[in-house]
Amino acid sequence: MPDVIAAVGDAYRAYSGGDVDQPPYMGIHLSTDAAEIDFKAGYHRSGELVSLKASSGGFRHNPDRFGLPNGMGTVLLFDGQNGALTCVMDGSLLTGFRTGASGAIAVQALARPGACRLAAIGTGNQARMQIRAIREVMQIESIHAWGRSPEGAQAFAAEIEAEFGISVVCATSAEQAVAEADVVITTTRASGVVLQDGWLRPGTLVVAIGADQPGKQELDPELFRDARVVVDAAAQCREKGEVQHALKAGIVAEPLVEIGEVLLDRKPGRESDDQIVIFDSTGMAIQDNATAAALLRLARERGIGTSFDFLAPAK
Amino acid sequence: MPDVIAAVGDAYRAYSGGDVDQPPYMGIHLSTDAAEIDFKAGYHRSGELVSLKASSGGFRHNPDRFGLPNGMGTVLLFDGQNGALTCVMDGSLLTGFRTGASGAIAVQALARPGACRLAAIGTGNQARMQIRAIREVMQIESIHAWGRSPEGAQAFAAEIEAEFGISVVCATSAEQAVAEADVVITTTRASGVVLQDGWLRPGTLVVAIGADQPGKQELDPELFRDARVVVDAAAQCREKGEVQHALKAGIVAEPLVEIGEVLLDRKPGRESDDQIVIFDSTGMAIQDNATAAALLRLARERGIGTSFDFLAPAK
Repeated sequence: MPDVIAAVGDAYRAYSGGDVDQPPYMGIHLSTDAAEIDFKAGYHRSGELVSLKASSGGFRHNPDRFGLPNGMGTVLLFDGQNGALTCVMDGSLLTGFRTGASGAIAVQALARPGACRLAAIGTGNQARMQIRAIREVMQIESIHAWGRSPEGAQAFAAEIEAEFGISVVCATSAEQAVAEADVVITTTRASGVVLQDGWLRPGTLVVAIGADQPGKQELDPELFRDARVVVDAAAQCREKGEVQHALKAGIVAEPLVEIGEVLLDRKPGRESDDQIVIFDSTGMAIQDNATAAALLRLARERGIGTSFDFLAPAK
Repeated sequence: MPDVIAAVGDAYRAYSGGDVDQPPYMGIHLSTDAAEIDFKAGYHRSGELVSLKASSGGFRHNPDRFGLPNGMGTVLLFDGQNGALTCVMDGSLLTGFRTGASGAIAVQALARPGACRLAAIGTGNQARMQIRAIREVMQIESIHAWGRSPEGAQAFAAEIEAEFGISVVCATSAEQAVAEADVVITTTRASGVVLQDGWLRPGTLVVAIGADQPGKQELDPELFRDARVVVDAAAQCREKGEVQHALKAGIVAEPLVEIGEVLLDRKPGRESDDQIVIFDSTGMAIQDNATAAALLRLARERGIGTSFDFLAPAK
């Protein structure tokens, strides 16, 4: 995780520094259910590395029918100097890690000094990943959790306590969960307000992970009015991020500040200890690129993987 | 090659039969030379198979600098029922084969009965592939070849004679090469007229492979005036195919006839023995899809390949 956090920080800096090309993604809608497979490519110019991630999602009968998760991923890396395929790796766990790492980067850059109380709105896999990542950069003293399913929240609490020895309180409402938080992470699939304006203490950082498509929403747009807003990619968040709703409502105005600009010291992040800060994460191909590159480097160092020569003449 | 020809015929029928989804391709321009990496996806609905081909091209210093070809390819197949990655295979040789097979399908469907004399305009790798494919469906008695480089044409002639025992005459001009031909295959990288109107005998089939991008051109648009025109994909040929120029000049009118429609008996192909027929091939993702599926089936039958379990938990 520390390697992935470093890679995602590099990715944000490269993106906002103009060192990245990410064409619009290519998607295919399958006949099965409402499933789809998307292809996202990213080019890190100075690193001379091109990545392609294939992500499937929405195969809701996979667990029953095939014993497979409802979404999977595959990442390819290509050498930008000669176009050669460098590696193929699983992209499922990688996506979970790099998305978790985005929360850690946000906490590092944007949380109030001394922040130690976390609230998790949403208690699925990505909530677990956020905690795995954030604990690398923040001393977590307590976690208050709330999710639509009380059983899901209980399972989350038990797992986090067992894995990290951090006490988790299952809140009876989202409002109660966030009441004392320094950092709130939202990882639901909601398409409506889950977190109301007025619930947060001054100085709270909200890491908004859930909204990454038009129509998806977790936060009350009013929450943006007096908050400092930082996004991962302005072009993408405008259309698909949590901020889409506050922009439409005229509560937030462009230009949007990118986390890469904050990391590069080109724009301020948090402006005071009392300011509420919202980080809007939609996920970018360059995060996959940088994370896959880090994993490949580690795999090579440790002798993990299998080598192929696709160009060898057939027998 | 017979398996690939069968697969490409199936691909054409599936495409024109409305059983295919091919989103616009996604491309990345590299800092190196004028190189690029493109990603083309195709979905064969009833076959429940999704393909993704990554193709690099334009790395002109690759042979010198890296001992690599200036373009390479990789194909992934995904199971459309669950989104799982089914296989990864080289896509370089596959592309050559499936493009060659398109010529064979055209000859099978559109050549004059008794056709036996071939002319090759362009003498590179794809000219060789065309002959490898066409000889599976036509008794080739003679080949007249012409290319910009006389040395290239001589090498081509020597290789074809050695590989297939078919005599090849190196013509001194394109006009001379095509004078007696029943089938003319054009595989150059030209962006201007190589084949003039008035040079062909009645009844000749022209397999136009070279033009697959806006601006590329091999044929005199006037050649289309009295010819029967058949394309691989109307939506694509309109923009990128040989027919783009004749359409712009108002010589050809829409709707364009697709080879898949001819194979499905929905539209006529050749209408008389004396008619000049032009087949405009731009290449489609579904050809990669169908060819890769055929290769995977053969590989499984023969126990070729290496198995992975990307989803196995890491140790």
